[in-house]
Amino acid sequence: MKTILRTGLALAAALVIAAPAAAAGKTMAEVLEASKPTDWRTLDPENTVYLELGSGRVVIELAPQFAPKHVENVRALVRGKYFDGLTIVRSQDNFVVQWADPADADHKKPLGAAKKTLEPEFERRAAGLKFIALPDPDTYAPQTGFVDGFPAARDKADGAAWPVHCYAMVGAGRDNGVETGPGTEIYVVSGHAPRQLDRNVALFGRVVYGMEWLAVMPRGPAPMGFYTKAEDRVPIREIRVAADVPADQRTRLELLRTDTQTFTDLIEARRNRQDEWYKHQAGRIDVCNVPLPVRLVPGEKTGGN
Amino acid sequence: MKTILRTGLALAAALVIAAPAAAAGKTMAEVLEASKPTDWRTLDPENTVYLELGSGRVVIELAPQFAPKHVENVRALVRGKYFDGLTIVRSQDNFVVQWADPADADHKKPLGAAKKTLEPEFERRAAGLKFIALPDPDTYAPQTGFVDGFPAARDKADGAAWPVHCYAMVGAGRDNGVETGPGTEIYVVSGHAPRQLDRNVALFGRVVYGMEWLAVMPRGPAPMGFYTKAEDRVPIREIRVAADVPADQRTRLELLRTDTQTFTDLIEARRNRQDEWYKHQAGRIDVCNVPLPVRLVPGEKTGGN
Repeated sequence: MKTILRTGLALAAALVIAAPAAAAGKTMAEVLEASKPTDWRTLDPENTVYLELGSGRVVIELAPQFAPKHVENVRALVRGKYFDGLTIVRSQDNFVVQWADPADADHKKPLGAAKKTLEPEFERRAAGLKFIALPDPDTYAPQTGFVDGFPAARDKADGAAWPVHCYAMVGAGRDNGVETGPGTEIYVVSGHAPRQLDRNVALFGRVVYGMEWLAVMPRGPAPMGFYTKAEDRVPIREIRVAADVPADQRTRLELLRTDTQTFTDLIEARRNRQDEWYKHQAGRIDVCNVPLPVRLVPGEKTGGN
Repeated sequence: MKTILRTGLALAAALVIAAPAAAAGKTMAEVLEASKPTDWRTLDPENTVYLELGSGRVVIELAPQFAPKHVENVRALVRGKYFDGLTIVRSQDNFVVQWADPADADHKKPLGAAKKTLEPEFERRAAGLKFIALPDPDTYAPQTGFVDGFPAARDKADGAAWPVHCYAMVGAGRDNGVETGPGTEIYVVSGHAPRQLDRNVALFGRVVYGMEWLAVMPRGPAPMGFYTKAEDRVPIREIRVAADVPADQRTRLELLRTDTQTFTDLIEARRNRQDEWYKHQAGRIDVCNVPLPVRLVPGEKTGGN
């Protein structure tokens, strides 16, 4: 077997699918191959948002279990067509991509049915969440894990739980006031997990498909990656709630449930890699390094692009 | 003050430079403003490599303290013009960008003065390194910190030290055999730190300038981000050792020394952010979240682009 880091190009396709297992455990490919149909879930169209760019569709799963008011407000903004025709305003290397209305820096634009301020939803009570804990230590939180497919953390000492800023997580940018992030400026983590933001801002979703379209946005030349010229800002064609999109135009995805034995097996396969390439087993894993498998529903084509 | 995540665009430039301090400590901007000229170092041109792309120059600092044989071999490959006219062959979202000779999947091309196999340099003895330790726990290593500007880890139990796979770290891709990575296929970390690779592969440098040109490479459509069509592969104009480039064409950079009080202050400023925007102090920091400041030498223009 060749490697993930160097390989004959022609062999690349075979590598991911047919990686042989060592005796001691399974590879991720083998874990997924052994998964049952019930290990997978589909997205709730009411909790799914499509960001349509010229390059492709970005699919965002909303997280009402963590930020119900922000999810509701973003849905209202989307349905009020707030974002349609706006642009990506910022791409900061190894940090975030962000969209907003560059002509509304003072936030005076009417928001229709959406609210202008929202109470902070930076964390919530851990009670009531099905928290799948990771066994390994984390730099930032007493415990990390997964809730309904979202990377998360909790602190038994104060009873709080919160989503964590892993790659592809989606949040509501705010000013200094904690109520000033109603979802009109949305950022997506596009670099190494900026965990210092945890518990400081409302994460309300995660990009589950099409992250590559956001990740390659040219970095803006101004501080913090802002674009300085209108022509550098990539346009947003529209953002829609999936429920409002005709069924045959939806991107039909299946996501591995994180509350399954298959996901637990996957975590173990990644903590101790069985691929022949690995000579040193990490024996541990960071919450933001756990893959969250997504696949297109077999036989379906993607909607949009 | 507005925020790093949401701000009036016109204010963006002012934010980074003039962030006000809380009473308890300094912001990073204030720490850097108070730095002395001796806190900064320049690059050794013999340990600096320029990767010239159509979009811009990528500056890589080599790490002979960790991988002397790989550094020597890469220098020989560069001076033998091995890479000139080759291409980026792979960009895998949230993982790595890689270049190599796509026509030499079997590794039969003559390497001139460079060697075809190299003994592994995945780690070394910690003794003899000036290791600036971070105070916080790490998921993967007993201790993390910095050695001469490179993020690193060490284990007092076995006396080993190794560079860690943070964003922008540069390594020598290999096949399954530990001696099969002579530097002909070079990868750069372009996503969340894939720390499972630590101690498995020779990291021999870090991108210190121009990382944005690599980070935005379109993701390849094949498994592991390989490109499938020749026309999708971005060409490498040339790679040169900075020492071989006329002095007036070099990119003159200054890097904050990591063995200074200023750097220690910077770490503290990032563990407990003093910016007014932050409501919850992390109180900790991950080795891959510590910024490693680089600035153009005042009055100099960049070479290349």
